[in-house]
Amino acid sequence: MTTGHLSILGMGPGDPELMTLKAARLLRESPVVAWFCRHDRPGHAREIAGDLVSPTATTLRFAYPFTTEIPVSDPAYLVRMARFYDDCAGRIATCLRDGQDVALLCEGDPFLFGSAMYVFDRLHDRFPCTIVPGITAMAGCWSVAQAPMVHGDDVLCVIPGTLDAVSLTTRLEQADAAVIMKLGRNLEKIRTALRQTGREERAIYVERATQPQQRCMKLTEMQGPAPYFSIILVPGREDAR
Amino acid sequence: MTTGHLSILGMGPGDPELMTLKAARLLRESPVVAWFCRHDRPGHAREIAGDLVSPTATTLRFAYPFTTEIPVSDPAYLVRMARFYDDCAGRIATCLRDGQDVALLCEGDPFLFGSAMYVFDRLHDRFPCTIVPGITAMAGCWSVAQAPMVHGDDVLCVIPGTLDAVSLTTRLEQADAAVIMKLGRNLEKIRTALRQTGREERAIYVERATQPQQRCMKLTEMQGPAPYFSIILVPGREDAR
Repeated sequence: MTTGHLSILGMGPGDPELMTLKAARLLRESPVVAWFCRHDRPGHAREIAGDLVSPTATTLRFAYPFTTEIPVSDPAYLVRMARFYDDCAGRIATCLRDGQDVALLCEGDPFLFGSAMYVFDRLHDRFPCTIVPGITAMAGCWSVAQAPMVHGDDVLCVIPGTLDAVSLTTRLEQADAAVIMKLGRNLEKIRTALRQTGREERAIYVERATQPQQRCMKLTEMQGPAPYFSIILVPGREDAR
Repeated sequence: MTTGHLSILGMGPGDPELMTLKAARLLRESPVVAWFCRHDRPGHAREIAGDLVSPTATTLRFAYPFTTEIPVSDPAYLVRMARFYDDCAGRIATCLRDGQDVALLCEGDPFLFGSAMYVFDRLHDRFPCTIVPGITAMAGCWSVAQAPMVHGDDVLCVIPGTLDAVSLTTRLEQADAAVIMKLGRNLEKIRTALRQTGREERAIYVERATQPQQRCMKLTEMQGPAPYFSIILVPGREDAR
């Protein structure tokens, strides 16, 4: 018996219409559909997929064992997450060995900070894989903000807000245009780095881009906490236009 | 009479199936369809659009006045390109003032190094605009290369190969993961910068990703010239996985 095929599908930033034609087709045809989610949520990727998932499909819901209860710096974090990804990859491998094709759904693009990469790393040597790129969260944000990001020979840096204050400042100094991801409890540290590099005034805050509850404003006008998955945009040089 | 609506549609990297459902819908419905191209070519964005363009649509083909005949550093370059974009924006504005909706097609994503930005800059104050994000060329490349790009808190830098040798080296030193665009005659300079920063061995060369003629290989195995729109990928840190 031939093994199944693993398709890792980028589902885009939230608006189901921002799925690609290819992701929609493979999703509709897939006998097994898998996705990651928080233990207390149905899962954002699954919500985007909506009724494109066949009612007869087998579903594999991979609930993270924790979210922020264990800090990333704790060695236990890596150990427990590795065990979790081993388990997810094992459950997908069982389907693939049985000859079933599997679609693994992924918010945004699968290869840009996506959990799907950890499954891909574990399976791609043994099974045929297709990666279907998705609209990234950052592209959703700059489209909603109507903020052209990079003209001419601007350099764009995509920076995780989880970096320490010194690294953040250094990275921002070097970037012409910047996207800062993973805000949450890092917001004040990021604000300080933007201020120190003279970029606070130009920064744009975007939350839940392309979704009904989306918010978009100048960072200087934004108050209160930011969800982890919100994004700050710093468009590139005006004089490169 | 109400003015028309300008939709700037990301068409993705080449495979027509990598268009979003939203771009495909707006394209089908649009009475006027515009795109940029080289004077001697039909235009890549138009080719991706294929028969989704209505046979009754008015088409506006904007042929660049030159490609590489005038170097970017020549002041005449900026002057002549600005005049060209003024003209394109003017032709779109005429349709919008007549109450016609216009779809402006854009390879990849409209706000990441796209000519559509220069039209947006000229029109967005006067007319209602919608930006539909697209799959970027770089996401097309890393999907085809099956190269997960950024794990953990890797920083991704998107670097134009048109930068000078010193800037290229500095930018590469600072990046965990890098995408180098605009290769063409910059290829040897980029190879040198990759070698000097110890990244040549990990670099992946991708040409015409997601299209029938696509090529993908280790950079060290790639010989001969590279088209301007080919891309080099340097995936992020192995130890962040």
